[in-house]
Order: sequence, then C-alpha cells, then structure tokens
Amino acid sequence: LNIAVLAGDGIGPEVIEQALKVVNAIGKKYNHEINLTHALTGAVAIDATGNPYPDETHEVCMQADAVLFGAIGHPRFDNDPSAKVRPEQGLLAMRKKLGLYANIRPTLVFPSLLHKSPLRRELIENADFVCIRELTGGIYFGDKGRNETRDKAWDVCEYTKPEVDRIVRLAYEYAMKRRKKVCIVDKANVLETSRLWREVAQGIEKEYPEVETEYLFVDAAAMRIIQWPEGFDVMVTENMFGDILTDEASVISGSMGLMPSASIGTHTSVFEPIHGSYPQAAGKNIANPLGTVLSAAMMFEYAFKLMDEANEIKDIVNKSLAEGVVTVDIADGGKAFSTSEVGDWLA
Amino acid sequence: LNIAVLAGDGIGPEVIEQALKVVNAIGKKYNHEINLTHALTGAVAIDATGNPYPDETHEVCMQADAVLFGAIGHPRFDNDPSAKVRPEQGLLAMRKKLGLYANIRPTLVFPSLLHKSPLRRELIENADFVCIRELTGGIYFGDKGRNETRDKAWDVCEYTKPEVDRIVRLAYEYAMKRRKKVCIVDKANVLETSRLWREVAQGIEKEYPEVETEYLFVDAAAMRIIQWPEGFDVMVTENMFGDILTDEASVISGSMGLMPSASIGTHTSVFEPIHGSYPQAAGKNIANPLGTVLSAAMMFEYAFKLMDEANEIKDIVNKSLAEGVVTVDIADGGKAFSTSEVGDWLA
Ligand SMILES: CC(C)[C@H](C(=O)O)[C@@H](O)C(=O)O
Ligand SMILES: CC(C)[C@H](C(=O)O)[C@@H](O)C(=O)O
Repeated sequence: LNIAVLAGDGIGPEVIEQALKVVNAIGKKYNHEINLTHALTGAVAIDATGNPYPDETHEVCMQADAVLFGAIGHPRFDNDPSAKVRPEQGLLAMRKKLGLYANIRPTLVFPSLLHKSPLRRELIENADFVCIRELTGGIYFGDKGRNETRDKAWDVCEYTKPEVDRIVRLAYEYAMKRRKKVCIVDKANVLETSRLWREVAQGIEKEYPEVETEYLFVDAAAMRIIQWPEGFDVMVTENMFGDILTDEASVISGSMGLMPSASIGTHTSVFEPIHGSYPQAAGKNIANPLGTVLSAAMMFEYAFKLMDEANEIKDIVNKSLAEGVVTVDIADGGKAFSTSEVGDWLA
Repeated sequence: LNIAVLAGDGIGPEVIEQALKVVNAIGKKYNHEINLTHALTGAVAIDATGNPYPDETHEVCMQADAVLFGAIGHPRFDNDPSAKVRPEQGLLAMRKKLGLYANIRPTLVFPSLLHKSPLRRELIENADFVCIRELTGGIYFGDKGRNETRDKAWDVCEYTKPEVDRIVRLAYEYAMKRRKKVCIVDKANVLETSRLWREVAQGIEKEYPEVETEYLFVDAAAMRIIQWPEGFDVMVTENMFGDILTDEASVISGSMGLMPSASIGTHTSVFEPIHGSYPQAAGKNIANPLGTVLSAAMMFEYAFKLMDEANEIKDIVNKSLAEGVVTVDIADGGKAFSTSEVGDWLA
C-alpha cells in the first residue's frame, strides 16, 4: 500500500503522526506492506520551495495509491488574501492536478458527544448523511479578473455536462448502498449552471428508479440542515455551495474534531480531516487526532477496498470514545489525554 | 404616506390584509393620511398579464414612498426551473428596477419562542444581529448562458467598487447605531470579487475607527451562525452568500413566521416578511401575519422615519405574543387564533 503523506501546516504533522501509528499497526496485523512517502505542501512548502504544491509533491501523489493529508494554512497569510503565493493555492492546485472531483464528507453523530452539538439532541440523534461536493469546477476554477482600472472584478462559474454527470452518478451509486435518497442542491431558479445540473440530474434520476430524488434550493438546504438534518441521506452539490453547506453540516454533529473526508480523484484519492490547520494548537500536543484516524479508515475503505481494516479502525475510535481516551476538546472535564497518548493507545 | 401594496401569491394577500389593518389603525391614531395603491406581482401577475412584474406595477412602486410586499411563488413553477416566465423573475426585476441594493434582515429572538429554535437555548438567548445582503449585483445579475451544444453553462459574478462601497458603508452606519461591530463575509481566499470587497471594506474600515471590524470566510460564517450567533452584530455580504446565510440565520431564532425584512432602494424601499408564499396554507386563514406586521413597523422606521409609530407596532406584537393571541404555528397547544383574528386584535 503506497501512501503519500502530506502533513502540511499547523496541527497537521501531529495528527498525521497518530494516524500513521494506526496505519502501521493495521498493516502489521493484516500483513500489508505499507510504504509511506512524505512530501511538502502548504506554508511549509512555500517556505522551502516558494510553491505550496511543488511538482515533487505532485509526483509523489501521482505515484501513490492514496494520499493522507493533514491540513494547510498559516495565520500569516490570513489577513492578506491578495498575497501572491498562498497555502490555499496549493490545495486548489492539488485538487485540479489530481482530478479530485468529489469531496465526500459523512456527517457522523457520536452518541457520547451529542451534548456538544449546538442543536437540540432530539434533532440530531439519528442524523446520518453524506455531503458530496464537486471539487474541481464551478466558480473556484473559472476565469477571474479585474478591468484595467481595477474597480470592477469578476469570477466565472462554469460547468459542463460530463463534470456534472460524473458526480451526480457517484451520488446515486452512494445512495444505492445507503438509504436510497439523493438530494440535489442547486439554485436553479437563478443560475444557468444550476439549470444544467438539474437537467443532467433529471436524466440520471431515471436510471435509478429505486432512489428517491429531491431537488432543493441552496437557501432552503442551509435551513434544512439545521431544522431537520435527519431528513438527508446523500446530498450532492456544486463546489461553492458545497464549501458552505459541508462546513455548516460539520458543526451540527458537535464532533468537528472527529470528522473525516475523502476526495475521490481520477488519478488518486486524498483523505483528510476537515478541521483545518488550527494554528492556535500547533505544537502543543493537544489536537484531536481522531478526524485524521477516521480519514485513514476511509482510505482503507475507498482507496484500498479493505473493509475489515477500515472497520477495525472505526471500532477502535469508538472504543477510545467509550473509554474516555480522548483529547481535551472532548474530555468534558474528565482526564484529557495528549495527541500522542491517544495515538499510542489506538495503535 | 403613499404605500404601494403588492400582496402577491400564496399567503401573501392574507398576511398583507392584517398588516394593512395595523397600518390604518396607526394612521388614524397618529393622524397620517394613508394612501394605499394595490398592484399585481408574482404568479397572479403572470396569470393576468403574462409578466410577474408588470410595468404598471413598477409605476405604482416608483410613485410610492414605500412598498409593502407579501410573497411570491407558486408550486406549479417549482419543478420546472426552466419555465420561460417565472414568479421569481418578477422579484429579481423589481429589485433591479427599484435599485433595491440592500436587503436588511434582523435576527430577532422572542423569549417566549426560544424553545422553537433548533439551537440550544443558551446559544441564542442573547442573539441580536442584522444581516445586510447586497441585492442587485453579483452572480444573480451577471451574464449567464450556454454554449451552442448546450452542454456547458456559465454564470458570471461581477461587482464594481461603487456597488460594494455603498453597501459596506450602510453596514458601518448601521453598526454605529448598534453595538459597533461589523463582520464582512466573503471568500477572498478564492474569489476576485471577494478581494475587491475586502479592498473596499479595508478603506471604509479606516473611516470608522470606533467600529470593530472582522473579516470572515463564508464557510466559517455558516458555522459561526450556528455555533455562536451572539457573536454577530452587523454582518454584510454579497448577494449569493447573503441568500444562503440570511436563510440559515432566520432558522436559529425559531420564529421564522415573525421575521421581517427591508430592502433599501435608490428609488423606493420594499418591506416584506421573509417566510415566502407558503402555498400549503394559502386561503386557510391560518398563516402567521406577524412577520408582515413587523415589516410594516420597519417601513415606518426606515421609509417614513416615524419611530413612535414603528415602536407602537412592535409593542403590540410583543403584547400579542405575551397574551397568546397567535396563530397555530406558535400557539404551542394553546388556543390558536386565525390570521384575521390576530390582525383584528392587533389593530
Ligand atoms: C481553503 C479553501 C480554499 C478551501 C475551499 O474553499 O475549498 C476550504 O474552505 C475547504 O473547504 O477545503
Ligand atoms: C426566489 C429567489 C430568487 C430569492 C433569491 O434567491 O434572492 C429568494 O430566495 C430570496 O432570498 O428572496
């Protein structure tokens, strides 16, 4: 199993270290040869090479069966969004060059953490849905610019039928393995790109008669996520809407530090926790490694199709929660373990 | 006081009728001559004239000191977003032609309705913020289209400095009368239009040294609205982000049926409840009129600068809540009054 490891910035290296302990332990137990190749990305890559996603890193990813990713971003770039070179550009370049067209984010609810949710318990107890976000198109990658006097700016949102087809199909395939419900989120009452999405989806819908399809405007979806999260099974949407809605959805579980994600690509796939670089905690050995560990579980499932290994990782995470071997963010007044202690325990 | 009345579709006519009872009662008490001119918009206007915002209606609005608006939208258009003529086009045409550049939505929390919120009570008890959404620019009004083979679609998001300047300034002026905090929501790490917003805002920020300014990415804002709504005072953002975030914010109060809005224009201003046409309830005399009545209060405040009148309307609404003279959606097992009974009681 050839894994590219991109630890990145902030707490990235610390949480990745714990996930690798678990990956290696699983490799030993199930007799897999695990080959790890580390490479630079994010602010650390800018410092070392001037480029947040260096060609060398790209080569490492292209050679790998999967990429395990920590986080990128550094506060020194935060108040200067027009800085010429920024860590986020590395992320976007990676997505585009690896063809990471589908970002998959499960919204998982952990019973012992329900009280951490901002939502009332009865609304989320049975929430279990997946957001699938298109990740290489839309307004992120369209033409953008300024006029000569720089007092007018534009960004173009663009989609082609094959781009939409690919991801909507993935959503339906996903739903077939779950509760067979797809919710397509768009703004077809205003946007031409959304009308294209809806046209394509209405075609694919017919191929999956067993699946219940719903079309929801993005503003209504933003409300529904809070009002009735249990109503969703698989949600699929375009890049910008997905950016907003997946972050909104990640909050309702109350367990953001535990949330994994997978980005499925045409060349390889990337697995990363959703929590970001969390610079305030960097270097303190307090960050929650469980989101990264669960991302490694998704890697075994999606990239390696090794379900036993994936399930064993999920089980040990649940056990760490049940036994209170957790970091300070979820220790709830109980003993808080350090990042590395949790990693050691899991491994 | 010359008021154009656009009742529109669904429950629009019923809730508008109650608001007009209140407006007339206030007019009598404070000795104002109230001139109401009714005009068509939405699906009813399509049926009558083929146009959801007929020229005649536009003329009526242009002559008025303010527009009181009900709701538009009809289910027969809902599953056909590519229908040539749609009620929403009327809304967008009205916004553009009246120059309604700023949509102002207070997020009000009513103590007696806190248990209706999906959020835990302690998170929202002291929430009191205003979202200001740019309403005549961005991706709503940029070029949109398809290529010849119709398998590629685009929508252009565009902003000019004067457009941004106008609304950001309004947000700062607003904040000066409140808790002096402005949060500018954008996606400056990805979008050129957002970088223009930030540039303009950074200039205006300097003119208001008393105001505390914060810049937040839209994905982070979608999280913060649920995690810590009390942290906001005045939020300002572009059209599409505003569409999503204002709807998200409207849910957390638990009192959607009570939420008013104002759209400030260069020619006149429009006041409307945020709840929409709610077709399931249309004609049943059960819809909650309080959002429209509070929109009328905003009209007295913003369009007529008559604060006593505005406050008297707000007071009577609070009294109706305290005494339980409310519609079924908030009656909570107590006696439910009809739409018109609530209107009569208020008047
Ligand atoms: C950092 C930023 C460019 C990125 C995005 O908007 O896609 C992030 O918010 C995410 O969701 O991964
Ligand atoms: C009906 C639709 C075009 C409209 C919008 O997106 O602006 C609505 O959602 C709103 O917020 O008033």
